[in-house]
Amino acid sequence: LKGEQKVKIILVSHGSFSKGLLESVQMIIGEQKGIVAYGLYPQETTDDLVAKLESEIILDDSEECLFLSDLFFGSPFNAVVRLMQKYDLYHVTGVSMPLVLEAALARNSGATAEEVCNKIVEISRDSVKDIKKLLAEEVK
Amino acid sequence: LKGEQKVKIILVSHGSFSKGLLESVQMIIGEQKGIVAYGLYPQETTDDLVAKLESEIILDDSEECLFLSDLFFGSPFNAVVRLMQKYDLYHVTGVSMPLVLEAALARNSGATAEEVCNKIVEISRDSVKDIKKLLAEEVK
Repeated sequence: LKGEQKVKIILVSHGSFSKGLLESVQMIIGEQKGIVAYGLYPQETTDDLVAKLESEIILDDSEECLFLSDLFFGSPFNAVVRLMQKYDLYHVTGVSMPLVLEAALARNSGATAEEVCNKIVEISRDSVKDIKKLLAEEVK
Repeated sequence: LKGEQKVKIILVSHGSFSKGLLESVQMIIGEQKGIVAYGLYPQETTDDLVAKLESEIILDDSEECLFLSDLFFGSPFNAVVRLMQKYDLYHVTGVSMPLVLEAALARNSGATAEEVCNKIVEISRDSVKDIKKLLAEEVK
């Protein structure tokens, strides 16, 4: 039933990007349960990151896992893809602030992981805007 | 002449998101001159941020300024829009890792600020991907 299954959101990136992103998202919509952030730091291997991410995965009838990674290809992305071969995970790459906000709000409204993925890919098409051009068009 | 004018890139966000983003970008493509990051923190006002951003603006024949903000609307975005009323600035919102990487590489190859804006808006259309769906399609 919609709303009965929780979606855990795991942000993954090179370095501190994902942690900063989560902190900034929480400045806007308050502290969020079930959203965590992991970074791959220079002294670590991809195996280290895989182990940390794997410890977050609990897949049962009450929870789905959605990974949001920084970049198509690259070690953090590859760590998630490796876990996708073992577990049934959701994974959207190219994460930004509008995407995490939308994902958090959709999830909190009872959307399933699949619905959250569809929603954030949909809004991503219009989430990047050239403001100089927009303002110039307004003047016309 | 192309390549003679430098493009300074200024990342702006709520909290530490922009600083984490810059750190992570530099993990991938090395230290970058002329890319800086500013955040608006809970104890600060939008005026404080405007003042800090304004101190980065040098507009002469040798430099253009491109702001990359976290979110359409919100205080950091509004701080940049306020400065756009006073200076001739470039501004794209909805920043993510692929966008900053593309902006840095385009700029380093001699693109003008306008060309960088066009390029990152263009690649943004395809920078967010649902990997679960992509992998399912590959199997078909």
